[in-house]
Amino acid sequence: MHLEASLLLHCPDVKGIVYEVSRFLFERGGNIIDAQQHREEMDNRFFMRVHFDASDMDAPQKSLRGELDTLSAQFDMKCRLQFSDERPKIAVMVSRYDHCLYDLLLRHRYGELHGDVGVIISNHPDLAAVAQHFEVDFHHFPMSGSLKAEAERRILDALKSYEIDLVVLARYMQILTPTLVDPYKNRIINVHHGFLPAFKGARPYHQAYEKGVKLIGATSHYVTADLDMGPIIEQASVPVKHSHSVEDLITMGRDIETQVLANAVKAHLDSRIMVSRDRTIVFD
Amino acid sequence: MHLEASLLLHCPDVKGIVYEVSRFLFERGGNIIDAQQHREEMDNRFFMRVHFDASDMDAPQKSLRGELDTLSAQFDMKCRLQFSDERPKIAVMVSRYDHCLYDLLLRHRYGELHGDVGVIISNHPDLAAVAQHFEVDFHHFPMSGSLKAEAERRILDALKSYEIDLVVLARYMQILTPTLVDPYKNRIINVHHGFLPAFKGARPYHQAYEKGVKLIGATSHYVTADLDMGPIIEQASVPVKHSHSVEDLITMGRDIETQVLANAVKAHLDSRIMVSRDRTIVFD
Amino acid sequence: MHLEASLLLHCPDVKGIVYEVSRFLFERGGNIIDAQQHREEMDNRFFMRVHFDASDMDAPQKSLRGELDTLSAQFDMKCRLQFSDERPKIAVMVSRYDHCLYDLLLRHRYGELHGDVGVIISNHPDLAAVAQHFEVDFHHFPMSGSLKAEAERRILDALKSYEIDLVVLARYMQILTPTLVDPYKNRIINVHHGFLPAFKGARPYHQAYEKGVKLIGATSHYVTADLDMGPIIEQASVPVKHSHSVEDLITMGRDIETQVLANAVKAHLDSRIMVSRDRTIVFD
Amino acid sequence: MHLEASLLLHCPDVKGIVYEVSRFLFERGGNIIDAQQHREEMDNRFFMRVHFDASDMDAPQKSLRGELDTLSAQFDMKCRLQFSDERPKIAVMVSRYDHCLYDLLLRHRYGELHGDVGVIISNHPDLAAVAQHFEVDFHHFPMSGSLKAEAERRILDALKSYEIDLVVLARYMQILTPTLVDPYKNRIINVHHGFLPAFKGARPYHQAYEKGVKLIGATSHYVTADLDMGPIIEQASVPVKHSHSVEDLITMGRDIETQVLANAVKAHLDSRIMVSRDRTIVFD
Repeated sequence: MHLEASLLLHCPDVKGIVYEVSRFLFERGGNIIDAQQHREEMDNRFFMRVHFDASDMDAPQKSLRGELDTLSAQFDMKCRLQFSDERPKIAVMVSRYDHCLYDLLLRHRYGELHGDVGVIISNHPDLAAVAQHFEVDFHHFPMSGSLKAEAERRILDALKSYEIDLVVLARYMQILTPTLVDPYKNRIINVHHGFLPAFKGARPYHQAYEKGVKLIGATSHYVTADLDMGPIIEQASVPVKHSHSVEDLITMGRDIETQVLANAVKAHLDSRIMVSRDRTIVFD
Repeated sequence: MHLEASLLLHCPDVKGIVYEVSRFLFERGGNIIDAQQHREEMDNRFFMRVHFDASDMDAPQKSLRGELDTLSAQFDMKCRLQFSDERPKIAVMVSRYDHCLYDLLLRHRYGELHGDVGVIISNHPDLAAVAQHFEVDFHHFPMSGSLKAEAERRILDALKSYEIDLVVLARYMQILTPTLVDPYKNRIINVHHGFLPAFKGARPYHQAYEKGVKLIGATSHYVTADLDMGPIIEQASVPVKHSHSVEDLITMGRDIETQVLANAVKAHLDSRIMVSRDRTIVFD
Repeated sequence: MHLEASLLLHCPDVKGIVYEVSRFLFERGGNIIDAQQHREEMDNRFFMRVHFDASDMDAPQKSLRGELDTLSAQFDMKCRLQFSDERPKIAVMVSRYDHCLYDLLLRHRYGELHGDVGVIISNHPDLAAVAQHFEVDFHHFPMSGSLKAEAERRILDALKSYEIDLVVLARYMQILTPTLVDPYKNRIINVHHGFLPAFKGARPYHQAYEKGVKLIGATSHYVTADLDMGPIIEQASVPVKHSHSVEDLITMGRDIETQVLANAVKAHLDSRIMVSRDRTIVFD
Repeated sequence: MHLEASLLLHCPDVKGIVYEVSRFLFERGGNIIDAQQHREEMDNRFFMRVHFDASDMDAPQKSLRGELDTLSAQFDMKCRLQFSDERPKIAVMVSRYDHCLYDLLLRHRYGELHGDVGVIISNHPDLAAVAQHFEVDFHHFPMSGSLKAEAERRILDALKSYEIDLVVLARYMQILTPTLVDPYKNRIINVHHGFLPAFKGARPYHQAYEKGVKLIGATSHYVTADLDMGPIIEQASVPVKHSHSVEDLITMGRDIETQVLANAVKAHLDSRIMVSRDRTIVFD
């Protein structure tokens, strides 16, 4: 049976890391297909992603994680290992806009995502029909005022019961509190319809229109407690003209929102992202 | 002799403006090649650019401006007329970076600019050799501390004596005071090496690097008394990655700086830009 | 009631066309919002699109077409007039790929299209569920060998009975014969998943991969009897690398296919396209 | 003293190559900064670029090439090693267009190129002043008819006497014969002002205009005996409209020609390109 795996690791930069990692895999029968490195000079750390063929390894899912501990200890390394036969579970959170939701569900169907959409969660009932069309569970947790804390607890329960690995905010129009953010650090991806760090907060297309910019942008990022401030994963832009109304910007924005969100979700699911000092390292 | 002209106008929006303008030109022997319009809903103004063949008109350079006054009065119109045989004079102001300067001088040589570079002004002597290579006058006005007011007066004198129509700040690393800004309102174009309104002020590539953005940008704009706040003319962006150092951003930035500055200068010289409420209307 | 209209026209280039057209509209109470022109030098023809406010005109839908005949005769003009309260009917033809179909149906739902999808026609039954989800009629006309002529007649009947104005081939994997092409000249839009005129015909992504190009493209165009040779409406490209497999190209291609097809459909429905000597004029 | 090196290698794909290469470097005191791999499935070959810190190695320039022979023999490997203190010598060949020449000379001055321009060679005398301005040797070898063979011999002599490693055809309007192509296989880079494989040969912008494409492109590639058919290194495109004349395409094309040529030259000088079955592998 063909089996591949991705190993993400980072540690203080010393000589011989690539050699020791490749030796570790070679001695266990792994074959490196592709490896990428990055040295962060400011804090002298080394980041690495190794994509290897594990087909000839002996029960790697059982043994490899344990054996990695020795290597990790030697280099003070943080590691994450993911096998190609594991399918991370995704929760998509939405409000009323459906373009990012359709886009993700279609990409899943086309086999573009290395994971599965386990559940769709919304603070509105409107998109239940989309969930039904794609045969995905849908939960509606109303969010008005006093219900917010209660709703977040129910969302957290749902994420646990669906064993969710990644939460995608696909134009979810609510601010998450630490109740949700903390347990899913660097595992919640949001799309902001503005060119962060410009145009934070509400109505970024209106802000862009008012300022008269000639490019509008969209940004996907990991969610932190600070609104629209988490590590940026992907950004895209599209040129605009004086003749475009705010409504035109909103229409044009949909296309780049879906693109930057999809690319961020794919990069996360492919184990290609690491975070260092609030900046992302996104390997190809 | 073949003669063309561009008429830029704006006025309160009422019915019949296009008709009256086309009648005005038709009755005088002009033939419209191309016209563009824009209605600014917020303040109900109408903006128009008419590009017409004036070859069959009777001494249009002499008569047309006077006759336009009647039409302008009727519609409370502001007009600007430019003939194809007029060559606006450009002053390029630089410090030590030369990439935008070379770019503009080469584009001038290739015939891309509807105007001529009359003089290069710098607060450093370094780029005199570039001016000489392209056979353009060069003036060095030192700018240190106490000399600033004096230098600006000498610059103003130079702009007047060279009969300058457009001032281009091609990575000029000094802030202009109202002494220079006021007399050349909407006639000074700057390039900022950041994605305005984000990353104003100094060292925008360092700011972008620190924030971990995935696109960097450059912005050309008319200069106002507020630093990096004037009406934006053109913006461009280029994707960046975690592996790019600040030096890489600076290198990649040069290419988009030259591009947005050149496009803004061309649009201005082609009489394709109008300003409304601190936003530009840039006709194609 | 607010009413707008678009007038597309072309004629031999003589002096005064803009004036006469604006006079024609002004005298009937129309107000030009926006007009665009193009002069084709090679055959000395003038092309124009006038977008005007017809709210104050007297029953323009009834009278205007007739009155235009006089103007047309004077300038030997071909005209097409479309009012904002008319909704062109679209037929979408598909096979098994659904990405362009979803994209068009969603854009329709978002109000991006000035027209309505009347029917979806396919040579396979697979996409009936998509039609049902968006509540659009679906017809399956099998296309195998001997059935082709029969199927095309039934398609033609369907197009007529649904009063279709525009046929969109959204990755329809059959070649149309003159039976269908001739009655819908410049009213059938196809998307080709290659950078025409390179990579015509079958499997363009495989061709691109083999050649080792560093950009792949997609092309939307009007359908003519010559396969993949009709007037090009829109093209887009995306950079590719040595590491991308043919499957990667297919995945990346989906995004540009939907984009170029949607933009072409919008431009057509907005009455922004004219065809001259097998080249399109696409006004903004 | 700080010293880095790049090792490019390819060989039949077997298990353990990354391990053996990293061991080879580790045992000699090298430290891998960055490594990239590519597996070409069609012919089961493995390609790798290793960028390593050689500062702590013992006289690596002297010893490493010899020691690599053993490793190469073991894996049937082809290797190329380049140290950061080596500066490849570039010859730029031009005719009368100067935009790519200025661009390369400026990038050299900005320190973007890991190499030095040793000589400029032209079949016309026109650009001698550019060479002089940048203080580079210039040789004029006239190319008319009967002189061609003689001129190519003199060019070959010049390339040898300047110890040229890379020949850049910066809009050189002559076809090279095998006299020049053969000795510099995969070491001559050309820029073609069209979107290869479309629009080969002469006047590609005229071809593009005639066909009515909506994107024009430029292509940099290694030169082979087949005109405009060598392995493509980089391509870029820019959108065009019906209103653009052939002259506009030529103007717009200059910007993408300089870009794709500069990027190809940089990639070559950084030892980031390998060629496999007429396709390039261009590592980041």
